[in-house]
Amino acid sequence: MSRQWNFSAGPAGLPEVVLRQAQQELMEWQGQGASVMELSHRGKPFMALAEEIEADLRALMGVPENYRALFLHGGASQHFAQIPMNLAMPDQQADYIISGHWGEKAVHEARPYVGVRVAATNEPGGYRQLPQVHAIDPDAAYVHYTPNETIHGVEFRQPPPTGDVPLVADMSSDILSQAIDVSRFGLIYAGAQKNIGPSGLVLMLVRDDLLSRPKRMMADIFNYSAIMERDSMLNTPNTWAWYLAGLTFKWLAAEGGLAAMGERNRAKAELLYDTIDGSGGFYSNPVDTAARSRMNVPFFLHDESLNEAFLSGSEAAGMLALKGHRALGGMRASLYNAMPLKGVQALTEFMREFARRHG
Amino acid sequence: MSRQWNFSAGPAGLPEVVLRQAQQELMEWQGQGASVMELSHRGKPFMALAEEIEADLRALMGVPENYRALFLHGGASQHFAQIPMNLAMPDQQADYIISGHWGEKAVHEARPYVGVRVAATNEPGGYRQLPQVHAIDPDAAYVHYTPNETIHGVEFRQPPPTGDVPLVADMSSDILSQAIDVSRFGLIYAGAQKNIGPSGLVLMLVRDDLLSRPKRMMADIFNYSAIMERDSMLNTPNTWAWYLAGLTFKWLAAEGGLAAMGERNRAKAELLYDTIDGSGGFYSNPVDTAARSRMNVPFFLHDESLNEAFLSGSEAAGMLALKGHRALGGMRASLYNAMPLKGVQALTEFMREFARRHG
Repeated sequence: MSRQWNFSAGPAGLPEVVLRQAQQELMEWQGQGASVMELSHRGKPFMALAEEIEADLRALMGVPENYRALFLHGGASQHFAQIPMNLAMPDQQADYIISGHWGEKAVHEARPYVGVRVAATNEPGGYRQLPQVHAIDPDAAYVHYTPNETIHGVEFRQPPPTGDVPLVADMSSDILSQAIDVSRFGLIYAGAQKNIGPSGLVLMLVRDDLLSRPKRMMADIFNYSAIMERDSMLNTPNTWAWYLAGLTFKWLAAEGGLAAMGERNRAKAELLYDTIDGSGGFYSNPVDTAARSRMNVPFFLHDESLNEAFLSGSEAAGMLALKGHRALGGMRASLYNAMPLKGVQALTEFMREFARRHG
Repeated sequence: MSRQWNFSAGPAGLPEVVLRQAQQELMEWQGQGASVMELSHRGKPFMALAEEIEADLRALMGVPENYRALFLHGGASQHFAQIPMNLAMPDQQADYIISGHWGEKAVHEARPYVGVRVAATNEPGGYRQLPQVHAIDPDAAYVHYTPNETIHGVEFRQPPPTGDVPLVADMSSDILSQAIDVSRFGLIYAGAQKNIGPSGLVLMLVRDDLLSRPKRMMADIFNYSAIMERDSMLNTPNTWAWYLAGLTFKWLAAEGGLAAMGERNRAKAELLYDTIDGSGGFYSNPVDTAARSRMNVPFFLHDESLNEAFLSGSEAAGMLALKGHRALGGMRASLYNAMPLKGVQALTEFMREFARRHG
């Protein structure tokens, strides 16, 4: 057995060079006589590492001066709840744009903390197109949306216009996958386990003025301002994931940065969609072409009785985790940054060969 | 440079055999063709691992049937807030016993969510003895205490009597360090980064009946019952830390279990305290002997102008992280499970030699 092409939706494959470096220095990190996991987060070596990682991230994403970078606990799902706690008072309202499962979850977890108004949803259309965003309430505390939906495979090409209302984006599944203009957003957050590193870490970029909004009574540990004041070390952070995120940022820079990744991701997705669309109906993807995700490609075999054969055959050919999410069935290939074009070529070759044999 | 004796209070040293196994299988875990970090938590391999880890933990600690084991995000500090959220209604009261810094923190973070009554504290005595627990309010929702305080180096020998009121223990710094009777506790929780694994994971053992208490409105992600119903996978858990916790549990069993660890930890602490007490006043530890921590030993040089020489000398002799917490100054040696007796012998030899040269 050796490393396979890993199409997992998350926790997802990590860049092989990142893993190799982590493996090589796992027992002793940078002459410290201990693993990076065994060092105090408040000691000079880890503090210096954290500073370097933030600088690398800022350079990579072009983060403006007036945005803070936070490294947080809890997974993105916790911040579905913590964002309304921090950005709104209980009697305020926030607008939510729903384009799939994760947008629904965000609404569900926000409801105890803010008045939720669904400003747009394409739930009635089965999340196959993007929702039409007609009118944002100018008094909304913020607008929340999910740029990419991993289960339904739906992605916004551009952030929706929200006027002066700050836009909050759950970028868990598409952060770092292309160059973006951070200044279009009030707050960006992302669970690490798709495009950043291992699970158990959340990266957040938040505009200064949103941190100083008046806040309800809450524990410091939920308060982004308190966490920011302590440089994301109000309590012990997930140091291992933070360190791996740093290795990933260095890898991304070495690969040419986010513009280059954007090109690569576009080409990978194009190859897979072309294979699906060119299969004469053997495979299908139901999403409106203008909304198709570059990161997560759900697809279906016309003859569903072949699903098991497809899965066992792809596994035998060295491809992992192609089974679709239980909500949709079928197949799903996730194509985050760490998946090289070669992996997608292997998949599409297998798909064509499989269709030839069973078509 | 090679691995040093690591006296860090946390994140702390991990057992070397655990690290070696993690390193060896970092790129490919158990024939899965991917790192354990790269696998879906909901896939069969990781689910099977999680089940095995829980079984190992239950065997190790003798966890009764009517206790659930949860693997959580957030660090123990987050659960300072989440425990009152889950175990009490806003108009209820809880009793807190404070024996040091972490007990104070627990109170501070609980206040937004429950009426806090300080049932006992030794703050006026500078946390050098254990607080006298005279009277627990029989109507308290729970009693919270910190069995071991890492900064002040104060440890309870036995859980305080609380009658029928459930006892909640922040065991972050002494979990798994000796055999305990879990049934004495209503809820035990611990940040992983001292005696369990790397940071970013919280282990919780909670008695069934406490999970079914009526709850205030809150997001599912904060609700222990909702998390329990999803086997600690309501959202993506910290899979790497969970996996390492499992390796640590296996290591503990192979080392003879918690009774053996208890003996070893007692011997380690005894050696260090004997060295301090036998130094003719060159070193001192201010804590009442009945309350001295087996896990964290703060100590002071009579001549504080020698502090820098002690720290640089101990580092040169292969010992890390002996600098005391800034709240107390001086030195501190943390002696969690992963620190072998040999490491404490190296420290005490260095201390005796240093005293001889500078005494």
